[in-house]
Amino acid sequence: MKSSVNALRILSMDEINKAKSGHPGVVLGFAPVAYTLWHDFLKITPKAKDWFDRDRFVLASGHASSMLYALLHLSGYNVTLDDLKSFRQLGSITPGHPELHLTDGVDATSGPLGQGIAEACGMAIAEEMLAKRFNRDDLKLIDHYTYVECGDGDLQEGVTLEALSLIGHLKLNKLIILFDSNRVQLDGPVSLAGGVNSKPYFESLGFFYQSVKNPENLSSIKKAIEKAKESELPSIIEFHTIIGYASPLAGLSKCHGAPLGEENTEILKKNLDYNMPPFKVTKSVYNDYKSALDKNYDAYKIWAENLKKYEELYPEDYKEFKKVLDDNYSVPLNLFDYFEFREEASRKTIGKAIGMISEIHKTLVAGSADLTASTFVKGAEGDFDKDNHLGRNINYGVREHAMGAITNGLNLHHVRAISGAFFVFSDYMKPSIRLAALMHLPSIFIFTHDSIAVGEDGPTHEPIEQLPGLRAIPNLNVMRPADAHETIDALTKALSLKGTPSVLVLSRQNLKLLNPVSRDDFDKGAYIRKDYLPFDITLVASGSEVSLALDTSDLLLDFGVKARVVEMVSTYLYDKTEQSYKESLIPLDKPSLFVEMASPYGLKGYTKEVYGIDTFGRSGKAEDVIESFDFTKEKLAEKVISLLKK
Amino acid sequence: MKSSVNALRILSMDEINKAKSGHPGVVLGFAPVAYTLWHDFLKITPKAKDWFDRDRFVLASGHASSMLYALLHLSGYNVTLDDLKSFRQLGSITPGHPELHLTDGVDATSGPLGQGIAEACGMAIAEEMLAKRFNRDDLKLIDHYTYVECGDGDLQEGVTLEALSLIGHLKLNKLIILFDSNRVQLDGPVSLAGGVNSKPYFESLGFFYQSVKNPENLSSIKKAIEKAKESELPSIIEFHTIIGYASPLAGLSKCHGAPLGEENTEILKKNLDYNMPPFKVTKSVYNDYKSALDKNYDAYKIWAENLKKYEELYPEDYKEFKKVLDDNYSVPLNLFDYFEFREEASRKTIGKAIGMISEIHKTLVAGSADLTASTFVKGAEGDFDKDNHLGRNINYGVREHAMGAITNGLNLHHVRAISGAFFVFSDYMKPSIRLAALMHLPSIFIFTHDSIAVGEDGPTHEPIEQLPGLRAIPNLNVMRPADAHETIDALTKALSLKGTPSVLVLSRQNLKLLNPVSRDDFDKGAYIRKDYLPFDITLVASGSEVSLALDTSDLLLDFGVKARVVEMVSTYLYDKTEQSYKESLIPLDKPSLFVEMASPYGLKGYTKEVYGIDTFGRSGKAEDVIESFDFTKEKLAEKVISLLKK
Repeated sequence: MKSSVNALRILSMDEINKAKSGHPGVVLGFAPVAYTLWHDFLKITPKAKDWFDRDRFVLASGHASSMLYALLHLSGYNVTLDDLKSFRQLGSITPGHPELHLTDGVDATSGPLGQGIAEACGMAIAEEMLAKRFNRDDLKLIDHYTYVECGDGDLQEGVTLEALSLIGHLKLNKLIILFDSNRVQLDGPVSLAGGVNSKPYFESLGFFYQSVKNPENLSSIKKAIEKAKESELPSIIEFHTIIGYASPLAGLSKCHGAPLGEENTEILKKNLDYNMPPFKVTKSVYNDYKSALDKNYDAYKIWAENLKKYEELYPEDYKEFKKVLDDNYSVPLNLFDYFEFREEASRKTIGKAIGMISEIHKTLVAGSADLTASTFVKGAEGDFDKDNHLGRNINYGVREHAMGAITNGLNLHHVRAISGAFFVFSDYMKPSIRLAALMHLPSIFIFTHDSIAVGEDGPTHEPIEQLPGLRAIPNLNVMRPADAHETIDALTKALSLKGTPSVLVLSRQNLKLLNPVSRDDFDKGAYIRKDYLPFDITLVASGSEVSLALDTSDLLLDFGVKARVVEMVSTYLYDKTEQSYKESLIPLDKPSLFVEMASPYGLKGYTKEVYGIDTFGRSGKAEDVIESFDFTKEKLAEKVISLLKK
Repeated sequence: MKSSVNALRILSMDEINKAKSGHPGVVLGFAPVAYTLWHDFLKITPKAKDWFDRDRFVLASGHASSMLYALLHLSGYNVTLDDLKSFRQLGSITPGHPELHLTDGVDATSGPLGQGIAEACGMAIAEEMLAKRFNRDDLKLIDHYTYVECGDGDLQEGVTLEALSLIGHLKLNKLIILFDSNRVQLDGPVSLAGGVNSKPYFESLGFFYQSVKNPENLSSIKKAIEKAKESELPSIIEFHTIIGYASPLAGLSKCHGAPLGEENTEILKKNLDYNMPPFKVTKSVYNDYKSALDKNYDAYKIWAENLKKYEELYPEDYKEFKKVLDDNYSVPLNLFDYFEFREEASRKTIGKAIGMISEIHKTLVAGSADLTASTFVKGAEGDFDKDNHLGRNINYGVREHAMGAITNGLNLHHVRAISGAFFVFSDYMKPSIRLAALMHLPSIFIFTHDSIAVGEDGPTHEPIEQLPGLRAIPNLNVMRPADAHETIDALTKALSLKGTPSVLVLSRQNLKLLNPVSRDDFDKGAYIRKDYLPFDITLVASGSEVSLALDTSDLLLDFGVKARVVEMVSTYLYDKTEQSYKESLIPLDKPSLFVEMASPYGLKGYTKEVYGIDTFGRSGKAEDVIESFDFTKEKLAEKVISLLKK
């Protein structure tokens, strides 16, 4: 009902005005759509907020957070009026942009434009995949929609455009995009920077396109969403909204990101014929919101019953489904007992390992950005496509950024997903990797071709600064294993983490087989690989350089130098260890040298000296390129000897 | 002629076979198009390779480099047969992917997919802009086309999709995309990952779309390019090529990235009826290529004459044009003599500074990714659009990545360009920033809202790891000025650099006005801001934390502690100074502490201890957030005192 829409608008304005900060424009325009979605469609309930089969809703325009918090409050979620009054204040559960885990009912952290639709794509893939795998004719455990609100800005972002193309290709018809088309951005009308000719554009991408000219007419919104739900194609509904609707700033970009203020809010209220004082809402409005969601609790109870029946009737499938519910993808200790460890590129090891783990975890998904043949990151049971929803390999095409965001979306839906690309192209996915870390998702990002050892492809394809760039992200476990054993340790570790995404940095070239390390040691992120007592210097290395450090240590003996070799597989894990452990590994009273075929930036946090690469790479045979950067045992030994002479 | 096409194919195969590395598939399919373009259209000449009004050609599929080198060789550029025989070898001028500056005739470094079309967009904007500004009815200094080859993969990349939308919006009709549509990628047919329904898709974006079904028919290629040149819309021509054409691997993805080998090359030669031994080409083929370009030298000579006439007739305009030719955007020493320096946000200072410099450099361009109103990065003379080619402000929309690549394209065409976005969104542009550094372009990337002081917008909008991530990129000058004076110093420095891109990291909040520093000091990247002799500790800071360090130093006096304060505005500049200078600034025998509201990662390369932030940010009032992270003089003083007690 209209008064519920206006209550949503005004409550949201109250939040913004009190905070003296926020984004009123989108809320005033989009409120009727949000209301209709929540009131008439969204299958969620505050009484079972983590219901696995609930509809998902992503607010891609995360700056419209005040509206989402108001919706959650009105619907009986654990967001109080006091929380709304603390909007955008330190320590509140109502921060500037919605944050997963912080606020009940928030399905994804959003704010950085473009990520939302791609995340929703991942959720929709998860839904199709789980439905196909677990549903039985009599018992449907998974059957929900994924809705995503987006604005004009989202549709300009490359990551969204990549995702749109995949959504159309995969015919994800349970994904419904609610496009808040107000044609105004921060800098002015969208026409300044160009939009698209919507209908033919979206149709050419394989979407069912609808347009709602007057979203003040709630029944037209309802009809469009109903039709979208029935479509065999993914849907986009363009709502021709007015930014700042009914306020004196309606249609103007200046109501995008600044509070209306009291005076304009008063005029707005008059225009809306809305009379409640700030932060007050009538009972009938509360009832309208709550009663709508109440019926969903009945649906939930049936679902919970069905889950019990499912457990009885299909105990094996239930076991697999339970892993999804629990987000439990841990790897049994003995799985790799008979694995044939050998000298090989760690990208090859990972391919085999993913294959083996895919057999015990039937919902583990993997996929690569058109580099399956090079990264060996590949899911089981064929390609996921419109005809094979059991396929657990996703062909992302050359869409690294969407791959990152979709990987997050899959993980948001408890379908553990692994992505694969060349390490240098981790740059393309950085915003999504960051979001995974911020959302505490267990996304796994695998990157191969990890150094100048890429060789012939040259500097455009040779990572240099990617290791420091990723290591500096909070809550991200970057691991660069040194051999086949550790590659599997790293994947096992990544799968055991529930609140931290992992990056595995793997080699293109063969890695010698080293001694296996204990799981305890691995968890410390660094350990001694070779030792002398007493020793003269500590060499620290990761990945392929561990073998180089070991060889150099051998060579140094000829010169009477005893070099301890420490491997640091993960600075993230190492940083968490006690200072005493650190000093026992890399004593402060002796020289120490970090050896890494990457930018030296940051390594002085670990050793006194660094042996790295501070220019871009070179094109040539891998061994020539490596030699040209002095990464040979002879040159490294020279460096050590000169250091010790100082 | 056909034999010239086949010579191009086989010479390219010879390179790849000899190197035992490379990408034959694209070359065999696209050679007829490349030949036709070079033979019948491309306005370039090896006799004046840097001719400013030459056509530009970007090989977005940089992995087809062997073809480009063969074209350059056949056309008489400074690429010898020996160079072709050194393809992909260390130290050659024929590396794995084309590299600007390394090889004559290469207009852009390419390889990372997606960048090429966006760079070409920048070049085409530059062409239109310079043409409008400098051409006279009788004297046209600028009148050329920009051609860009691209493959299926490019058209999946978000940065390309962003750029396509802008190209259509801006109606850049002198940009012609030659789409090598072979429908095969590394992982198999494009249909695995989804393509687009080309014609309606490109038309909805504002392109003139043509399709050439059989590119073996050279006259159909020629006709299509002729029509594209005449169109009032930007053009895309889809050439339905066959990957690995005429080889036994034709149509298969396995000829994408691995040499054909001798046997298959022999069959290929038979199929093509081509009989020359490896690295041999008939005279008639050489003549065919060279004579085609020779006529362009005549055009060049007329242009050079015209330039002289222009100098005489329009001396003032010539002076401005000469700056473009010389890539000279340096700022006169006295320009800011009457600038009103004040306490303000550095984003505000930069806005005014760009305005002033735009008045003396009439081809300086700026633009923001829908954040003009927040970053104040804005070009002069109105918005560049189809009706105003003199406009030097580019409205990029929320397309950060394309903005980065277009900024590079503009700079490739000697139109100095500045981009603007929030610092956290530098992540979206990282691949383009890296390419600018790799290409030694003077691109200027301005990022505002540089820390947790963003406040209410919260962790999604608060940079933490962006400083280390960018500082680790080789050949990139990241500057974080501390006040209005230095903001202008930083911009001045950025404009003086010709072979290094710059990143300016600016504040959202007000910065106190400090004493100006000399240009010599600034160039050292770090200098003493406050001193005591003797002193107890060195505090090092950048940006807004310089004032905090100065205040803390004052406070510490009360506790009998004398703290030297060093500002480090640019680690890039500082890293280049002598060790003796470094030690004079931050003595090794005293405690030192780097104070930065950012990830501490990397700062131990500069000081013994670090006072940073190793989690994501928080949403709240800026001052509350800052305080919650202990960035107050009281807390910092406590830290210093506890350090000194150790």
